Order: sequence, then C-alpha cells, then structure tokens
Amino acid sequence: MPIPDRLLLGPGPSNPYPEVAEALARPLLGHLDPEFLALLDRTCDRLRTVFRTRNPLTLPVSGTGSAGMEACFVNLVERGDTVIVGVNGVFGERMCEVARRGGAEVVRVEVPWGRALDPQRLLDARRDHPSARLVAVVHAETSTGVENEIAPLALLQETDTLLLVDTVTSLGGIPVEVDAWGIDACYSGSQKCLGVPPGLAPVTFSERAVERIRTRPDPPQSWYLDLGLIGAYVGAERLYHHTAPTAMVAALDAGLGALLSEGLDAAWARHREVGAILQAALTGLGFTLLAEEGCRLPQLTAAGLPAGADDRAWRGALLDRYGIEVGGGLGELAGRAWRIGLMGHSARPRSVAALVGALREITA
Amino acid sequence: MPIPDRLLLGPGPSNPYPEVAEALARPLLGHLDPEFLALLDRTCDRLRTVFRTRNPLTLPVSGTGSAGMEACFVNLVERGDTVIVGVNGVFGERMCEVARRGGAEVVRVEVPWGRALDPQRLLDARRDHPSARLVAVVHAETSTGVENEIAPLALLQETDTLLLVDTVTSLGGIPVEVDAWGIDACYSGSQKCLGVPPGLAPVTFSERAVERIRTRPDPPQSWYLDLGLIGAYVGAERLYHHTAPTAMVAALDAGLGALLSEGLDAAWARHREVGAILQAALTGLGFTLLAEEGCRLPQLTAAGLPAGADDRAWRGALLDRYGIEVGGGLGELAGRAWRIGLMGHSARPRSVAALVGALREITA
Repeated sequence: MPIPDRLLLGPGPSNPYPEVAEALARPLLGHLDPEFLALLDRTCDRLRTVFRTRNPLTLPVSGTGSAGMEACFVNLVERGDTVIVGVNGVFGERMCEVARRGGAEVVRVEVPWGRALDPQRLLDARRDHPSARLVAVVHAETSTGVENEIAPLALLQETDTLLLVDTVTSLGGIPVEVDAWGIDACYSGSQKCLGVPPGLAPVTFSERAVERIRTRPDPPQSWYLDLGLIGAYVGAERLYHHTAPTAMVAALDAGLGALLSEGLDAAWARHREVGAILQAALTGLGFTLLAEEGCRLPQLTAAGLPAGADDRAWRGALLDRYGIEVGGGLGELAGRAWRIGLMGHSARPRSVAALVGALREITA
Repeated sequence: MPIPDRLLLGPGPSNPYPEVAEALARPLLGHLDPEFLALLDRTCDRLRTVFRTRNPLTLPVSGTGSAGMEACFVNLVERGDTVIVGVNGVFGERMCEVARRGGAEVVRVEVPWGRALDPQRLLDARRDHPSARLVAVVHAETSTGVENEIAPLALLQETDTLLLVDTVTSLGGIPVEVDAWGIDACYSGSQKCLGVPPGLAPVTFSERAVERIRTRPDPPQSWYLDLGLIGAYVGAERLYHHTAPTAMVAALDAGLGALLSEGLDAAWARHREVGAILQAALTGLGFTLLAEEGCRLPQLTAAGLPAGADDRAWRGALLDRYGIEVGGGLGELAGRAWRIGLMGHSARPRSVAALVGALREITA
C-alpha cells in the first residue's frame, strides 16, 4: 500500500515541522530519565516564551486541546460557581458544556457566528455577576475564523474574576500575550500553529489562578487533570503522577524550537502574509469569507462555498488528486463552508500556491 | 549533544517495536482523513483481538493509562454509587481516589503489598453491598509485581454489579480474556507490553456497560472522556469530538500489528521465559522478590535491594554507563526496591543478558 502524503490545510492537524519528525525518530526516553526531565524543563521554558509569560505553572497537559480546556475548568471551577462564557462558535459552546459538567452556572454572552465578541459586553456581564469565578473566551474561533479581542479584558485583573482564554488556534500564529493581557489560565493545542502532531495541550496559569487551585476546599473532580498533582511532577519535586507521553513531549519541544529559531514576530508575519494571499484568492474564486472584516484570522479561514459548488466532490478531488486536506464546515456551517488552515509549518507560500492552483483546476 | 539511547527496563515505557518507530516517521494524517479512519478501524479491530473481546465499544482513549482509568470510572459511576475496589498496591489506591472524585462511596478490599487479592473476598464484599455498581481490580500491580486473579470474578455477570479491570501492565504480556472472564470495562496503556510510546489508553466496554452509560440520567462529569461522544467519532457516525492524536494512533496500530504477527501465545511465552530468567538471576545476586510465589508477574518484577546496596548509585551506574533504565520503588518501597520491566519489545533474552551482566559488574 502506498503511504499517503498530505498537505494538511484543514483546521488541524497541520504538517509538523521537519524538526518534529526528526525528534519522533529518536530513541524513546523514560518519563523519569534525567535527560527527559531536562528536555521537559526546556519545553516548559519554550512554552513560557511562546505564551509570553513568566508563570511557573506552564506545562503540556497529556491530552489534546480539549483536555487542556477541561483541565482549566475543572481546576478553577467549584460546584455552584458562576462562569461567564463568550459564545460565537463551536468552541465557545464547548466551553459552556465543559463548565456545566463541572457544576458551574453558565452565563452566556453571545454574538452571531462570524462576528467578534465585544469585550465590553463581557466586562458588563461580569459587573452584573460580580461573584463570577471566571470569564472564558476563545481567542481564535476555529469554527468561523474569527479573532476575539482579549487585551481589553485585562481589566478583570482589578476584580476577583479570573480570565480564561482558549488559544488552541492562535498560539504561534498570531500574537498571544498571556502576561500583558492579564490572562489567568490559558490552554492551547500542539497540532495547529505550533506545528506538532495532536496529543498535547500546553497550559499556563497565573499566580492568582494557582492560589485559587491551592486553596480550593475539595480537590478537582478529575484526578488525571489535577494541576496540583501534575505540577508536582513537572516542577522541582518530580513526584510521579502519570507516565508522561515522552515521545510527544520531545516532538513538542522540537516544534517550539523551530518556531523560536524563526522568531515569534517572523512566524506571525508569515501567517499574516499567507492568510492574506489565500483570502484574496478565495474571494476571486467566488468563495465568501464568513468572518467579518477586521476580525479575520490569517491562519484559519472559514469560507462559504461558491454557488453550485459540491462540498464533498470538491474536497474529495483535493484529497485524492492533489493530496490536499481542507476542513468541512462545523455545526451550522456543515456542507456550506470550508475551513482552511495555514498553520505552523503549513503556513507557507508554497501551500497557498498549491491549494489555489488546485482550486483553479477544480472550479474551472 | 549525543542522543541518548536507552534500554528501557523500568515499569514503562518500554522500548517501542521497530515497526512503531517506522509508523511515527510516516507523514501525518488528519483525524477525518479516510486513510486515517481506516487505520483507526484496524487499530480498534486489533485491540479487540488483543483484549480477546467482541465488544463494539473498543478504542484508544486520547491520554495515558490513567486517563483510561478515569474514563472507566466517570462513565460508569454516578454520585453516591458504591464501588468495591481491590487494593494491594499503588494502582488500587489510585482507583479508590479516582472513584471518590467521581462521587463514589468506596469499599476497600485490602491485602498487604506483595500478596494477591482473594477473588472470593471481592465476591463476599459484593454480597455485603448488593447494590454496588462496580467491582474494580488491578490485574497486574505495577508497584509490586503481583498478578491478581480475575477469572473467578466472572460470577459477577450473574449480578447487576459490573467488573472493571486495569490491564495496563498485563495486556500483551500475560493472558487477558475480557469476554471469557466477564470483564465489563477494561483499560490499558500503550507503553508497556504493547511496545508503543506512552500517550494512549486502550479501553473496551461490554454491552451491559454500554447500556449503563447510555441510560445514565446525567452525562459523565468529564466531557473529554465521555465515551458516548468518543464512540460517536470512532464508530460509524464519525462525529467530530476532539482531534484524535493521529501520530500516536498510527504508532499503536503498528505496535499491535507487530504483537499480532508474532501471535499472542508466542508473546506471552516470551514474556514468561525472560521473566523467569531475570527472577532467578536476581535471586542469585541477593535481591529478594517482593511478590509471593504463585502470583509473580513475569513482565514486571519488584525486587528488594541486597543488603548494602545503594539505590541511587546503582541505578545511576546502570543508566550512565550501560544506558539501562530500571525503576525505583513506589510508595512504601521507595529506596528499598527496584521495579524491573521486561515488556513488549524490551522482553528479549538480550535485555536480560545485558541487565544481568551489568548488575554482576556493578555488584562485584
């Protein structure tokens, strides 16, 4: 059987950096090997650089981005807490569901898909619910390609309400400023703009978030995602909690190394450049951009199909003839839109040229 | 920097099969790519063969073995349920903790470390607590090297109490018979006798366990580990839940392929043979075997150090001079014992020869 070789331009995973493939080919290390622990320390340092934070509690959770989301909620929320969630896509909805399962009362601040959340409305909701434990927002909505502005929410630092931000699709692709924006808890995923296979969820927690976890009366409902216990392994104590996924951590370390060798500014500029080329070309081909102008992500474009387009046939042709994967629409956009990612190592002029060239042939 | 190359003879991870390294080097696939979905189907079929089950709900959970443990408890247990747990080591204790965090009332059936649980005592506990939702037992206790007998617990099938078994360290190394032993829920880990890096937890659920999940009044407290939702992605519906860790699934598929090419009987015989050689050699070197005779695992040996031994210095010499990793003692055995794994691809005569040869030099 031939081995399939894809150009991954869906909403994730993206193609890993070559340095990542090299790291996965190295001999496996044990999770308590001093060489692995040094690599883990370096990975956490690199995560701090990429998150733009000095938070000591910064580490990769042993699961995908959704495990990172759940880790944030189950550690910070206690039964009966009020949680304010911004909702303008699938991943805001998911936050509501995960918060509810943790026993939270959820207050939704909602705008239609394709539009950005108004930070002032989130701050107003917090004023109306002053005892709210958390305000939670998705920075880059993978279902719509919308960027929600986070910086104005730094005002929450003057309150007892913590700020939780999903940066699964943003980290490494556009600016994320954990400390400058006053983010208290932040999770991401390895498989998008970090250019690593799926399976790890980088997280970081501010000092006051850590204090909240440390002083909660009952332990989190999840033992696997208990950041007090995980932190005692990743931190100086090195207390065994679960067997760290050592191959994937080595892959993440290598992806972060590639990203930081290039430099965050250069990587952001690269994502911005190729996203603009793609979005102009899609418009020329009759696609419509679903995110409003002014809040469009460069790294993830949700595009309505041209009239007469055949979603399945076109995506099938892209995959079968060209080996190019793009994503279908999610939720209310299923069958009517695509989600095209230009993330991490996939965010290259060659990727756009290949996709646009293929689309010209398919739509001709 | 030289790349460290270890012989992994600790309690996991073991050295991956060569087929696994080859799979990790292949181009990454997306989680909805038809080629990946076919590979996932094959992986689940291979898991059924290895678990010796026909259970449709058989799949790899996107986390390590402890995530598999938590998935079993949070899906099967509701707040206030009684759960009977066999405890004779660290992993039985962990089951109690995970069950408690899910709101269960835990009934412990305990024997000292190094001895096996008496299945009759577990059945008696169930008779004393007839409404118990679960009896939970660790098949192979990684902290002590003890095998707990599971087959007699098939009698639970005549009751409304489900049987949950941890096969993290047993699956692929010694016989595990999910259907014949009447196991309702079973989890394992990729990084032990399956010869794959850590990061995935194979699980399987009987029809009556699935029915219990389907009819529970409230959803499980974990969204990430909700088997109803995960099953709808892995099953025919292919509904997106979270981004499957595609590289690790390909690795698991390859490891299972290597194991099944050899044959389960042959793999069990190989583990049995090398375990016996190791245990005889250790005794000759002055170590004591902590598991009682008659319940000793071949694939994981907990060995008390000889008088005058220096735990850290000896393990340091093994790692630094010979590149051989063995594990330290866990819990009450820390500093006083080692845990030596001969699992998966590491379960070879050459591994034993290297370890025993190195130990002769160190202890000379």
